[in-house]
Amino acid sequence: MAAPMKGMSLLRQAYLGLVRPTGAQVCRQVPHRCYSTPGAGQVQVDMNSETGVATVRLNRPPVNSLNLDVLTELGIALEKLDADRTCRAMVLASAVPGIFSAGLDILEMYQSTPERCVAFWRALQDAWLGLYGSRLVTMAAIEGHSPAGGCLLAMSCDYRVMADGKFQIGLNETRLGIVAPFWFEDVMLNTIGHRETEKALQLGAMYSAQQALSIGLVDKVVPLAEVMPTVQGELKNWLQIPDAARVITKTSMRKQVLDRLRSQKEKDAQFFADFIGRDSVQKSLGAYIASLQKRKS
Amino acid sequence: MAAPMKGMSLLRQAYLGLVRPTGAQVCRQVPHRCYSTPGAGQVQVDMNSETGVATVRLNRPPVNSLNLDVLTELGIALEKLDADRTCRAMVLASAVPGIFSAGLDILEMYQSTPERCVAFWRALQDAWLGLYGSRLVTMAAIEGHSPAGGCLLAMSCDYRVMADGKFQIGLNETRLGIVAPFWFEDVMLNTIGHRETEKALQLGAMYSAQQALSIGLVDKVVPLAEVMPTVQGELKNWLQIPDAARVITKTSMRKQVLDRLRSQKEKDAQFFADFIGRDSVQKSLGAYIASLQKRKS
Amino acid sequence: MAAPMKGMSLLRQAYLGLVRPTGAQVCRQVPHRCYSTPGAGQVQVDMNSETGVATVRLNRPPVNSLNLDVLTELGIALEKLDADRTCRAMVLASAVPGIFSAGLDILEMYQSTPERCVAFWRALQDAWLGLYGSRLVTMAAIEGHSPAGGCLLAMSCDYRVMADGKFQIGLNETRLGIVAPFWFEDVMLNTIGHRETEKALQLGAMYSAQQALSIGLVDKVVPLAEVMPTVQGELKNWLQIPDAARVITKTSMRKQVLDRLRSQKEKDAQFFADFIGRDSVQKSLGAYIASLQKRKS
Repeated sequence: MAAPMKGMSLLRQAYLGLVRPTGAQVCRQVPHRCYSTPGAGQVQVDMNSETGVATVRLNRPPVNSLNLDVLTELGIALEKLDADRTCRAMVLASAVPGIFSAGLDILEMYQSTPERCVAFWRALQDAWLGLYGSRLVTMAAIEGHSPAGGCLLAMSCDYRVMADGKFQIGLNETRLGIVAPFWFEDVMLNTIGHRETEKALQLGAMYSAQQALSIGLVDKVVPLAEVMPTVQGELKNWLQIPDAARVITKTSMRKQVLDRLRSQKEKDAQFFADFIGRDSVQKSLGAYIASLQKRKS
Repeated sequence: MAAPMKGMSLLRQAYLGLVRPTGAQVCRQVPHRCYSTPGAGQVQVDMNSETGVATVRLNRPPVNSLNLDVLTELGIALEKLDADRTCRAMVLASAVPGIFSAGLDILEMYQSTPERCVAFWRALQDAWLGLYGSRLVTMAAIEGHSPAGGCLLAMSCDYRVMADGKFQIGLNETRLGIVAPFWFEDVMLNTIGHRETEKALQLGAMYSAQQALSIGLVDKVVPLAEVMPTVQGELKNWLQIPDAARVITKTSMRKQVLDRLRSQKEKDAQFFADFIGRDSVQKSLGAYIASLQKRKS
Repeated sequence: MAAPMKGMSLLRQAYLGLVRPTGAQVCRQVPHRCYSTPGAGQVQVDMNSETGVATVRLNRPPVNSLNLDVLTELGIALEKLDADRTCRAMVLASAVPGIFSAGLDILEMYQSTPERCVAFWRALQDAWLGLYGSRLVTMAAIEGHSPAGGCLLAMSCDYRVMADGKFQIGLNETRLGIVAPFWFEDVMLNTIGHRETEKALQLGAMYSAQQALSIGLVDKVVPLAEVMPTVQGELKNWLQIPDAARVITKTSMRKQVLDRLRSQKEKDAQFFADFIGRDSVQKSLGAYIASLQKRKS
């Protein structure tokens, strides 16, 4: 599984989160030193003390699929930045060209133990609570595909800039026969409203950047090379606002959705483990994975 | 009352639901056998076992006004389709040219008994709970006017295709001096959001297909002859999604609004009967009906 | 402080509500007799018994900043109109050219006593409850700048017509380091939805009339001279609807937001007084005022 599968589009692989990190990582050059990630460095944090802006890059080639390790690292990184009083804003991006994040790693769901499932889900919950509830100005620089959990991370930021072109974004869970949890749904409701969310979730819709812009799923669409400069420019507007007033306002707007998950974290994790453990779901995931491996060989 | 009233537009009659079915029904040819409607056949169900798609056509000329019988038949038809495991989707349409449905039959409200009012309202509640909560993919093929209860039925589907041209759609209750119940309001909120709903309901606004499209009240507008083919084409997208995941998602999105009515069905029916029984409301309805009969003669 | 400050735009002064009424008021001619405002006449009510339409004009030059007196007068005026059975509609406007209202008077917040703060806040609550919950058709004729509390008043009407051109509207509280209370937020949510509200409130965004139109913050944009005629034309549509049905509908749509404040008026007022009394907030407000006075001299 070292190399991208032949005969499959990167997007398709991204949906499945099947492909594992390789030795031959094609990484973007990161100009600053890594600041807060111990361990595997699958979440690169680059803190600019002058501007107060941290750049957090997911770095798990080939498709930044979110497994227990990455989510744990991301949660820790967010916690550290939150505690760093010199930090006022965060840009969430990818170190892997062509992909923002493929979402949850399907291999965490297939033939796993209930204990591992629960641990995995808790790491996802904590990373998300840290991101959606962050006191920082959070900006998503979407320079590649962003399905499922990737879309969740993007939607949980304060602002989204997406690269124009072939990349897609959306919560496509139903296409795999699984269901976006209630808090994915809540975040989408707060982003694009009830009607669009109903269509998007039922159809597992993936949107081009222009389509995403037209329904409000992203805030700005620019050529790939302009994504980061546009994010930096937009950040200037946000950093003009006194932090205290902005944070109270943000908290007030997001508290209800955050509290809904906070009040039922264990129940939600248990539900996930039970749902994934069902024979029918395992069978469905297994068939999917088998069909891909067959196609590959 | 057999023929459409002279000097009155069809739309106006549709608003009032005054005109009764006639012997000389102008019905569209229905290519398949009627499958589940005993009785008067005012709700035609045409189940295509090959595709898993049922077409349900309201057939109460001249304007498909919804009386106790029609609502009861519709509720039963929805229940049967829900129980039919070969059925995956439903198209709601009209067998009467020029009209989708005129909404509730005003004659059920005028000089009726409290018992009949309550029975009528329960039939409406049950039909709606069956439609809005249906496990099927539900599509409204709006090939004619669709005021009041007609608009409710259309909004309660998963997707709406409307014929371009002279037809109108909207919850126009306030124009008759009556009020859309809270669950009509909830469904509209979930469709076009708070601001548009506030305007639409206060003004009893009727929208052209193009206007309805611009505020999200319908999803697609095509020439009359293209409505059914467009619905069929759109259905293909929806039927690609595994049913189980889609249904859980749909239920999650609609549960709150469904539960709100479920928890107060009797109170809601009693409120309706009391409201309609008021002298002032009866007087207002009576004056309306009298003015129309006068105009007719 | 009699004259507008030199070297400062009117809008900037409007934001701050710093400038006090002068003897040399530049008032628009009001064609009818003042009907219900005793005292200072800072809220002019012009009731047209023929049409049933009252025009309420804020008249506290130079920028209609809302202090305890104005809010008390406004609350009383709304109560009187509500009780006047000949009155069916109200146009909220300004008697001061170039400004709708600058919002809350910052001098009510600076170096005030807790008692005065609470009294001030209660007057604001009551005026707003009277406006947002009014049985009348309420129309905002926005013929000038409308920041902060001015935007709240406009949003609380049933319909908004704004003058095209240089004027701006928005809840810009965070720019001053303060926070819009939860019920300002609720009203904005009901007007422009969650996503736009999140951006608008966090950024303290001020919108041009055209921008406001595009996000639904106002309903119509016309040249300045056309604002009042447009409001009158729009009123005709609203007054065609029977009052009783319209009022029940309006109440149903707004009850939740009104009840949320009603149930915690005292707590909300106390919170405001405590927040404003903080050293850090007083210091911030003081620095602002000092910097402006310095610039002026």
